[in-house]
Amino acid sequence: MRIRKKPWAEKYIQDHGDYIVTDPKKWLGKWQQRFAKQQPLNVEVGIGKGRFIIETAKLHPEINYIGIELQTSVIATALRTFMDNPLPNVQFVLTDGANLDELFYKNEVQKIFLNFSDPWPKKRHAKRRLTSPLFLKTYQTVLADDGNIEFKTDNRGLFEYTLVTMNNFPMTFEYVSLDLHQSPENESNVETEYEQKFSPKGPIYKLIAHFITEQPGD
Amino acid sequence: MRIRKKPWAEKYIQDHGDYIVTDPKKWLGKWQQRFAKQQPLNVEVGIGKGRFIIETAKLHPEINYIGIELQTSVIATALRTFMDNPLPNVQFVLTDGANLDELFYKNEVQKIFLNFSDPWPKKRHAKRRLTSPLFLKTYQTVLADDGNIEFKTDNRGLFEYTLVTMNNFPMTFEYVSLDLHQSPENESNVETEYEQKFSPKGPIYKLIAHFITEQPGD
Repeated sequence: MRIRKKPWAEKYIQDHGDYIVTDPKKWLGKWQQRFAKQQPLNVEVGIGKGRFIIETAKLHPEINYIGIELQTSVIATALRTFMDNPLPNVQFVLTDGANLDELFYKNEVQKIFLNFSDPWPKKRHAKRRLTSPLFLKTYQTVLADDGNIEFKTDNRGLFEYTLVTMNNFPMTFEYVSLDLHQSPENESNVETEYEQKFSPKGPIYKLIAHFITEQPGD
Repeated sequence: MRIRKKPWAEKYIQDHGDYIVTDPKKWLGKWQQRFAKQQPLNVEVGIGKGRFIIETAKLHPEINYIGIELQTSVIATALRTFMDNPLPNVQFVLTDGANLDELFYKNEVQKIFLNFSDPWPKKRHAKRRLTSPLFLKTYQTVLADDGNIEFKTDNRGLFEYTLVTMNNFPMTFEYVSLDLHQSPENESNVETEYEQKFSPKGPIYKLIAHFITEQPGD
């Protein structure tokens, strides 16, 4: 997601250090200290304007949420929305999602959400896609053995690519929808801003998958 | 595919025994005898009116094709079309596709095509779907180690189901398209009659996948 640079953003982030982290490597192993309660940790990579993580966190006070976003102006907008009604189970992190394994301990994360990630449609940019094998490798490291990834997109090319990369990794599919808004599971779907705006143009695709746990002796 | 019973069908089949088999178990291990040349064997399960297998066989004289169909009237219609211009590399088989492993030897088949199979949309009928785990098990038995399955459908529910069953089996995905007619690979696509008729109503989905070959020692 690209939006115009917002001059107020940097100061706003500095002023709200209770809810946002800009030096995430310092918090390695200490994330739970930033929340009101120690409870399972879910991470969204690429939060956009934040609707998904905020609404999901409201529905699940029993889970701690960390929202990662690379762009200062974008995360500041999400943070400003959040500050209208702050929740004790959400933290924002301004950083690249590329190296989750430097931010979290092995098996520390219960679930990773990837919503409407940049499709990087050109083949030579495929490695930048958040579902490329190199990214999957970092997710595998930080996810708990019974953790999983929930991925949504409206981009057909990115979904086709992801079905192949996750299958080939290998990961096990738990759920696939090729038109989420027409599926029974849509009842519990939390829409992102992007999803609200663009879903009339075509189907929303969703995939839930987990890594195969190594058996003792493997 | 269901069509009206055709009174001429049974006699037509009897009269063209050079190209159609109604007692397939007798031909176990002897299929190559029915073709002009001994060459790799591809099988389509559920041929409908036969356009796909006939046109594909024209494009690939270096491959032998066996088209399986359960319904007498349907296969007779395909056979009649075929007899306008018979090919030495096509044979038809009137039988249920459920037990391919009773018709072919282990590893005998190079590729299996499943085109627009009956979606059996009710959950209690899921076992009848041609991509249910029990069917996959028989395909695994008859397919060569480097063989694969090519699956096309316009039915979203069946494709979602198949992505999960083939992934879970486990099988490895080689290719996924969520809108084949808009994909570059459509250039080499051979359409079925059904596909020609119904594709304007929505996307055609395609999946190519292979079984994971057991390594020595497994």
